[in-house]
Amino acid sequence: MAVISTNQDKLVSHQVLTKFMREVFGRIKCAPEVSEPVVQGVVDTALRGVDTHAIRLLPRYIKEGQSGRVNLSPQMRITQTLPTTALLDADHTYGMHAASFGMDHAIRMAEQYGMGSVAIYNSSHFGAAGIYALAAANRGFMGFSFTHGHPIVAPSGGSKALIGTNPIAFAVPMEGEDPFCLDMATSGVPWNKVLQYRAENAPLKPGWAVDREGKPTTDPHLACALLPIGDYKGYGLAMMVDILSALLTGMAFGPGVSGLYSPGEHQNIGHFVMAINISAFTPPAEFASRMKEMAEGLRSSPRANNDVPILVANDPQKATRAERLREGIPIPPPVVDDLKNLAMELGIDSNDYPSLLGT
Amino acid sequence: MAVISTNQDKLVSHQVLTKFMREVFGRIKCAPEVSEPVVQGVVDTALRGVDTHAIRLLPRYIKEGQSGRVNLSPQMRITQTLPTTALLDADHTYGMHAASFGMDHAIRMAEQYGMGSVAIYNSSHFGAAGIYALAAANRGFMGFSFTHGHPIVAPSGGSKALIGTNPIAFAVPMEGEDPFCLDMATSGVPWNKVLQYRAENAPLKPGWAVDREGKPTTDPHLACALLPIGDYKGYGLAMMVDILSALLTGMAFGPGVSGLYSPGEHQNIGHFVMAINISAFTPPAEFASRMKEMAEGLRSSPRANNDVPILVANDPQKATRAERLREGIPIPPPVVDDLKNLAMELGIDSNDYPSLLGT
Repeated sequence: MAVISTNQDKLVSHQVLTKFMREVFGRIKCAPEVSEPVVQGVVDTALRGVDTHAIRLLPRYIKEGQSGRVNLSPQMRITQTLPTTALLDADHTYGMHAASFGMDHAIRMAEQYGMGSVAIYNSSHFGAAGIYALAAANRGFMGFSFTHGHPIVAPSGGSKALIGTNPIAFAVPMEGEDPFCLDMATSGVPWNKVLQYRAENAPLKPGWAVDREGKPTTDPHLACALLPIGDYKGYGLAMMVDILSALLTGMAFGPGVSGLYSPGEHQNIGHFVMAINISAFTPPAEFASRMKEMAEGLRSSPRANNDVPILVANDPQKATRAERLREGIPIPPPVVDDLKNLAMELGIDSNDYPSLLGT
Repeated sequence: MAVISTNQDKLVSHQVLTKFMREVFGRIKCAPEVSEPVVQGVVDTALRGVDTHAIRLLPRYIKEGQSGRVNLSPQMRITQTLPTTALLDADHTYGMHAASFGMDHAIRMAEQYGMGSVAIYNSSHFGAAGIYALAAANRGFMGFSFTHGHPIVAPSGGSKALIGTNPIAFAVPMEGEDPFCLDMATSGVPWNKVLQYRAENAPLKPGWAVDREGKPTTDPHLACALLPIGDYKGYGLAMMVDILSALLTGMAFGPGVSGLYSPGEHQNIGHFVMAINISAFTPPAEFASRMKEMAEGLRSSPRANNDVPILVANDPQKATRAERLREGIPIPPPVVDDLKNLAMELGIDSNDYPSLLGT
């Protein structure tokens, strides 16, 4: 266990976390059909090591449900506009509920017609974009998912944060292992990274952020906005994500998108999910086998540094997942404290979860 | 005219270039249905200022037609596999012919079913990816186009060029002006840029290239492979493009893709084009108006440098297009020489094109 936890983290099995989260959502009277995609999404994301989008957000999600910002009894309505396009009014449910439902529907359309896409509106933070692309790939489809977010990235040449870190996720099946899955923000780093460097008084890397005048800065205390990857390229991709998530859905875009942590009523964000039927183009087994061949060719190619392996997208997450399935999911002390408070507040008996809530 | 040409470039109207190209293709007995998309694609690309992918490639395209590398009498076959998916065997025609035909078909499917995609195989260099995304946007659709290319980009952590600069293009209509169009290589710069810096003995910018050991280098003479934008992000996007262009089409991927300039038989590359019916999600006029609003919000936002405007994707190309429609397309002397040789070889009377071929 020392391999993944040399510090004070608790190591909690995914089964215990799942059971705990189910009890938490039960206590706030969230219907299982609403909460189950959140539980699965958070636990899967934690297993894959994407900790910024996993357990630490649970208290926030619960608070949003309690305050009414997220609707715990949503009446989602899907409107089929053409055979492969649908609009999903998420009625302010949890984003993971909305996007899972949306991707299921996109897959059904792709099954029959070759492609399918769902533009989702009146939604909220949907966690890691990769969840939905992976859901498609795990069922043999090519999956894409996109969401916009609150503005924290400056346009190229600008000084004001006007765009979200707007992620793009893409996944396809691969023979003999979990899918290939690219899940990337269109900014160089997340804002959390700047906050972490600020706390440590460490210099940022060049190209990560600009100051209030829009000048590149490596001073974490002066950083006011993130920069997109590859200048106009990441900026253009971020706009593409906003176009898909806001312009197709009728949601606000750019500066109009409210923050994950902002108070007020509903979050009102949009997502776009899409599935493509691989079997409409090529035999799926051949596709998966050639995908494996492509990945292996890259992994085994000459390295710049012999000690640093060449990976393909999702390799680090696959390794972490295998390890965490075996050893447990590390939860840092501040998050454990938050979960203890949450349990106490909701009247959950900490003795039922000794590995998570025990002293 | 001094504004766009302070050097020895000839300024040639797009009408003259169009007429010249039509005569050139006529001389090599290329059917107009095959050559016309090439003529239109090259002239439009030249007008938009993407000179790396425009007139300078004409002699190469002609040689490919003459040598049989490109088939001047192709029998393209399209197979409708599901209502929104089709496979196009391009029979080694010009890539611009294949991809234009493919996008037309994708749009027809999107019109009826909401989405449409065509995986194109047995094709060749298709010029600027933006051409096809723009074709969709100009007809009111959301367009995507992708193509792989010969390997010149190293994977993150690798020393060997194993992936193409694999571009992504995305375009949508915008009220009152030409479409928003992102057309980006997934590498930081094209290989041409390295060659140009090599010729000028100028240092490369950090992050553009690696040497033969995979170490980052700014020495243009030591550069052996390009780097993707944003490390694993651009690398993952480049793989996505290879997956769409090669794995869905049965074409070779990565190191198996032959070069634009390689000798030998057919080029055997694949493309993927996709259209989405905007009206299936939102009234098109409202979409275009909100797109304009998004662009204007960014353009008018606070600048890092007052003298440098904030742009959105396609703004530079729109400005160049307006200028070149008015003033002509600048053709540098070496390209003029190539065109003169081409004209002589094909028995074209240079007196018919004084602005282009005159002394």
